Amino acid sequence: MSKINQNQGHMTLPVEVGQEDVVLDLYKKWQADALRDSDGTSMPDTLAKQDSDIYSVMCLVRADQQYAYDNPQYLHRKYLMSFPVTAMGETVKISPLDGYSKDKYELDDDSKPKQWWEVRNRTTNQVIDPSQWEVSTETNEVTVYQAVPYHEYTVTFLARQVWDSVSMYNALTNDWDGPRIRSLDPYHPECRAHLLNHFKKWLDEHPNTTVVRFTTFAFLFVIDTGEKNQDIYRDWTGYGETVSPRALEDFAERFGYHLTPEDFVDAGYYNGTYKVPSKRYQDWMTFVQDFVVEFAAELVSMAHKAGKRTAMFQGDHWIGTEPFLESYQKIGLDINIGAVEDGVALRRLTDSGGDQVREARFYPYFFPDVFREGNDPVVESMSNWTKIRRAMLQKPLDRIGYGGYLSLANKFPHFIDHVTEVSAQFGDYLENTQRGESKKITGKVAVLSAWGKARSWLQNQARDQRFYVPPRPDVMELVGNNLLECLSGLPFDVEFISFEDIAKNGINQDIKVIINTGDANSAWSGGECWDNPDVVVELRKFVANGGGLLGVSDPSAWQKNGRYFQLGDVFGLEKETSLTMGRVAMPVSLDKEHYLSQFLTGDEDFGNASYVYPQADDLTVLAAQGQHLALTAKEYGNGRSVYLGNLPFSMENARLLQHILLWLGGNDKEAHQWVSNHPQVDVAYYPKTEKATAVNYSDQEQTLTVLDSRGEQLDITLAPYEWRWIPA
Amino acid sequence: MSKINQNQGHMTLPVEVGQEDVVLDLYKKWQADALRDSDGTSMPDTLAKQDSDIYSVMCLVRADQQYAYDNPQYLHRKYLMSFPVTAMGETVKISPLDGYSKDKYELDDDSKPKQWWEVRNRTTNQVIDPSQWEVSTETNEVTVYQAVPYHEYTVTFLARQVWDSVSMYNALTNDWDGPRIRSLDPYHPECRAHLLNHFKKWLDEHPNTTVVRFTTFAFLFVIDTGEKNQDIYRDWTGYGETVSPRALEDFAERFGYHLTPEDFVDAGYYNGTYKVPSKRYQDWMTFVQDFVVEFAAELVSMAHKAGKRTAMFQGDHWIGTEPFLESYQKIGLDINIGAVEDGVALRRLTDSGGDQVREARFYPYFFPDVFREGNDPVVESMSNWTKIRRAMLQKPLDRIGYGGYLSLANKFPHFIDHVTEVSAQFGDYLENTQRGESKKITGKVAVLSAWGKARSWLQNQARDQRFYVPPRPDVMELVGNNLLECLSGLPFDVEFISFEDIAKNGINQDIKVIINTGDANSAWSGGECWDNPDVVVELRKFVANGGGLLGVSDPSAWQKNGRYFQLGDVFGLEKETSLTMGRVAMPVSLDKEHYLSQFLTGDEDFGNASYVYPQADDLTVLAAQGQHLALTAKEYGNGRSVYLGNLPFSMENARLLQHILLWLGGNDKEAHQWVSNHPQVDVAYYPKTEKATAVNYSDQEQTLTVLDSRGEQLDITLAPYEWRWIPA
Repeated sequence: MSKINQNQGHMTLPVEVGQEDVVLDLYKKWQADALRDSDGTSMPDTLAKQDSDIYSVMCLVRADQQYAYDNPQYLHRKYLMSFPVTAMGETVKISPLDGYSKDKYELDDDSKPKQWWEVRNRTTNQVIDPSQWEVSTETNEVTVYQAVPYHEYTVTFLARQVWDSVSMYNALTNDWDGPRIRSLDPYHPECRAHLLNHFKKWLDEHPNTTVVRFTTFAFLFVIDTGEKNQDIYRDWTGYGETVSPRALEDFAERFGYHLTPEDFVDAGYYNGTYKVPSKRYQDWMTFVQDFVVEFAAELVSMAHKAGKRTAMFQGDHWIGTEPFLESYQKIGLDINIGAVEDGVALRRLTDSGGDQVREARFYPYFFPDVFREGNDPVVESMSNWTKIRRAMLQKPLDRIGYGGYLSLANKFPHFIDHVTEVSAQFGDYLENTQRGESKKITGKVAVLSAWGKARSWLQNQARDQRFYVPPRPDVMELVGNNLLECLSGLPFDVEFISFEDIAKNGINQDIKVIINTGDANSAWSGGECWDNPDVVVELRKFVANGGGLLGVSDPSAWQKNGRYFQLGDVFGLEKETSLTMGRVAMPVSLDKEHYLSQFLTGDEDFGNASYVYPQADDLTVLAAQGQHLALTAKEYGNGRSVYLGNLPFSMENARLLQHILLWLGGNDKEAHQWVSNHPQVDVAYYPKTEKATAVNYSDQEQTLTVLDSRGEQLDITLAPYEWRWIPA
Repeated sequence: MSKINQNQGHMTLPVEVGQEDVVLDLYKKWQADALRDSDGTSMPDTLAKQDSDIYSVMCLVRADQQYAYDNPQYLHRKYLMSFPVTAMGETVKISPLDGYSKDKYELDDDSKPKQWWEVRNRTTNQVIDPSQWEVSTETNEVTVYQAVPYHEYTVTFLARQVWDSVSMYNALTNDWDGPRIRSLDPYHPECRAHLLNHFKKWLDEHPNTTVVRFTTFAFLFVIDTGEKNQDIYRDWTGYGETVSPRALEDFAERFGYHLTPEDFVDAGYYNGTYKVPSKRYQDWMTFVQDFVVEFAAELVSMAHKAGKRTAMFQGDHWIGTEPFLESYQKIGLDINIGAVEDGVALRRLTDSGGDQVREARFYPYFFPDVFREGNDPVVESMSNWTKIRRAMLQKPLDRIGYGGYLSLANKFPHFIDHVTEVSAQFGDYLENTQRGESKKITGKVAVLSAWGKARSWLQNQARDQRFYVPPRPDVMELVGNNLLECLSGLPFDVEFISFEDIAKNGINQDIKVIINTGDANSAWSGGECWDNPDVVVELRKFVANGGGLLGVSDPSAWQKNGRYFQLGDVFGLEKETSLTMGRVAMPVSLDKEHYLSQFLTGDEDFGNASYVYPQADDLTVLAAQGQHLALTAKEYGNGRSVYLGNLPFSMENARLLQHILLWLGGNDKEAHQWVSNHPQVDVAYYPKTEKATAVNYSDQEQTLTVLDSRGEQLDITLAPYEWRWIPA
């Protein structure tokens, strides 16, 4: 690749009819090189012929509404479970859609209830024989006969979705008053054929488009909508909206067994991504992925044949095409676009395999929820930019962009200036890094979860998230433990591994530290995956042979054989879950002489009390909240372990994590070049360009000392918010 | 019973050689009518002939130390599990006593390890064949061969106890330097015969003793002691120290199956009382109870034949004779003595069946841990007295007493005056109530747990207790949720029921409200007892038919069939345990119009955040901590339910509980006579004497309005701390 010249531009600018002058002004200011339309805006004709890339949004499954309205049999369907109804007598009547949006869902009258639905006694978890229940086509009510009084009953039914979730969101949040968009399911060959025709025609009709920006291919992530049209359940990587009787039948043929409605509604838990996935659910994911990848590859190939490049926006109808899936590269896309609000989101974009161009679409989106009188969009943007930069220093990012209504943004001159500055800084970054990766500390850090690589850099929601009402529901703001955000900006090679990886292949030699972080029962901590002695043995062996193990929140949590933490021996501690209340609390005393003690100021935020207590004589307690352990360290064989109660994101916590990982990896003895030990300043070194960089994230002048490339001490003083590039 | 004249006295006074003058002075001041020796003190000869009751302490299993030292085969034994050892190769060496007190425990060389011990692989939970391990009698080490590397191993072994826990406590806490007391196990017929002889002789040698005060009969509650002689595990109602090979063999003969070492060590959980008991453990309890009751009855009968009355102190070697057990009345005791620090402890003493005299032994005990320079014993006593009085107003108490070194107490004149006042108030209470019970509000309140009646009014320890280091380890100070303490002073008839009661007999007609309170997994909440549809159905039916259900902390918690709270439908809510994180948090809005809203000031303490969220449209939220539900109410059929996140004890919380129980019992419509609605003032009415009473617990003047016996409003103004008796 030839040397990048930032003057060529690196930004995708949203355009809007009537804003042509603004576009031309900002195109230069913001160093744009591409124009895009957005949901709700279109490309002015005069701009479509500029000497720039033209991104055109394509969401094929929403593209032909006439066809969607004419062919309800091809609409998206999903299994919903009725809310449980308690039998107050021997007959129970259940209106399956009670509690769900009638604007969004209809009972699917294209599939036979007795074949495709399921009624269950939820008190005994027995399936009720179809002869014992009836559906009334008049009242849409299910009547269950010979019920057991005071047992609960549910109906799992196929719902047809007559209002697309994104369309609904825009109508309800942004007051759009257009028609209610419906999405089509291309799994049906007839429907697919129609959509391909439509796309072919679209390609012909968009001669100026240079990049087809897919949003996205086939199936939306899961959003369940309640009676008042409010979101009641969301899973950004959930496969719940991919179902059709035809697909289920094909699945059975391929996998040799039939999935049941219960496999989808999962007792009402709906296989949330934060849950440990069942084998059956994983089979279904494979099935869906194979279909979507093949479908998407056909679209991409058509676009390529039409002389256009292709981009995929990671979101919306992206199920089956998440970029960390192995099958993803078969699609043949040219550009990956991710909505990026923090470091984790950036790493989700930059760390997936393949040689796609990586484009970060920044928040805030130019929508009236943020760009309204009295609100300062710069506050959110700066907070994001701090987190994003930490991660950007670790993995190369190629482009940036925005979306939405330019006319809205243009009402905030302070914001326009701010983006000008952001884009200029990004230009400097490209110039100085030449897309090279910064130097990392030796030894990989692996994050162990039930998902492994497939859900790399996905925010690990914790229980606290459920009790946090964010100001904007569409933007992820993770509260509580957030180790991944801390990790996203640290100079370590990171990979994500699963329990299956370990059970099948053991632990790779290049891994120096393994992290297990998450709430008990979650896919992140691992839940029932810990019910496997082989995994436990592999990890004990890994540590005993010199590895490092970091546990956060509920690492290895699985109640069995007298332990709640299955690796409690390695960590030297245990969690109180009401089974050891007779054990006597001992006053905890803090070790001030440990290597890690020097990095503790007492200002760290370890989140909620851990309910974890010491259970080894040689456990070193570094921090506690009362008697609740917050940070501990232990030697185990030739290796080391650390436990952290919680690690919410802060610059201080992130730097503490760096020190912990250095200690766990046995890297605490040697001095590292171009590594910061200052919480507010990041430092990175780029071997490709032989340049180092230092960023001050604070509004104060900061000074730190680093080792330079010759191993000599270098004092750096940075002005508030200064980002400096240093020949090294 | 003739009218009680308080001048006859009602207090048991501890005596001490050399303190004769103090005794005679306090005997009058404190309105004593009985003298007692204590652990470590003895009765002066001059006092032994006073015209008063003489209580003499008798702990028969500790009474003949020469015999105990000569007959180690009759010492108390228990199963201990070695701390788990991870195999780092194919041979593992385990020193079973590692981590345990070598001063207290010896490996029991009187029983064959291969027959009575058990080695387990704790990673797979497999019992290791005895041919695969050996015990060295030289090193006391167990060697396990053909071990699986990185699996954990434990040895469950019989330990002989060569130092009685109480003797050890006094040596370590109170610096007693007497010989190390050993306890004998009277289950062995030879030992029993010897002890009975000893007791016969003792009776002959104590002609002045009028009351034999047993402390207690056979087996101590469980205290495991660690390497540094520190308590590491305590269970005040645990049956772990009742084991001998002989008893185990007799058990097998009677019950038709053999208990294993694992039945006692329970994967290291040791059947803690806060755990849901297994059927096998309950069988063992029955077996022990039958033996101890029969043994104790023989001792009591001997004392009676010697013309003496008998008292039992509820504690120390009291296992098998807990007064709420049905078998208890067979012993034939005359006086029940309980150590009482709060309302729950008082109700534990006063509420058990039988016509025994109830004597409360108050704290602080006259020991140097409290009666030391710089400490004010009145502070603890007043705090206790407030809680105890609340409960005393509800159930009759007959006597009070103290224990320990009178010489120590006498150094604190302020304390002497304080007890004079307490005893005078107690005299007034006896005079005005004539041992009658105060009037209760119609309808019983039942507390549902896995134990039911057998563990009535036992403090329900919660997880927070594990992280609280109390100033004095022998005195219970319950932190966190403490519904029972709140309940102990309220005007309701209370009973304790178990899941088995419900499954077998349904719910009694006289029960109006059922309470389920406790942490998940605990015997208090019920754990696996909720895995029974019949119980769930009975409770739903109970509420639907007009009953009230109060859930606190984790009521009906048991993960199954899509619910964590099995009665989540009745409560209208659910707990987040990482399985529903995709459900969207809705901002909680508080109802200000509900009947219960009027009693909320916003100053209530609901303890820890509940992680509970609404799951019913008709749920009324009365209080929340952020989005965590703290207090909710719901109608269900003809009945009602209330959920409380936590209810730590405070006067305000106790009064709130009264209002909640009134509402749940449908008693909110009618006005109640002599019922207080003032947090700081209790009111009670005694039909037997037609007297009412009002107590101001605060240091401020308080005024309240109550309905008198004619249903007319009566204003009462009380001076700080005033306790007034009112003819009614």
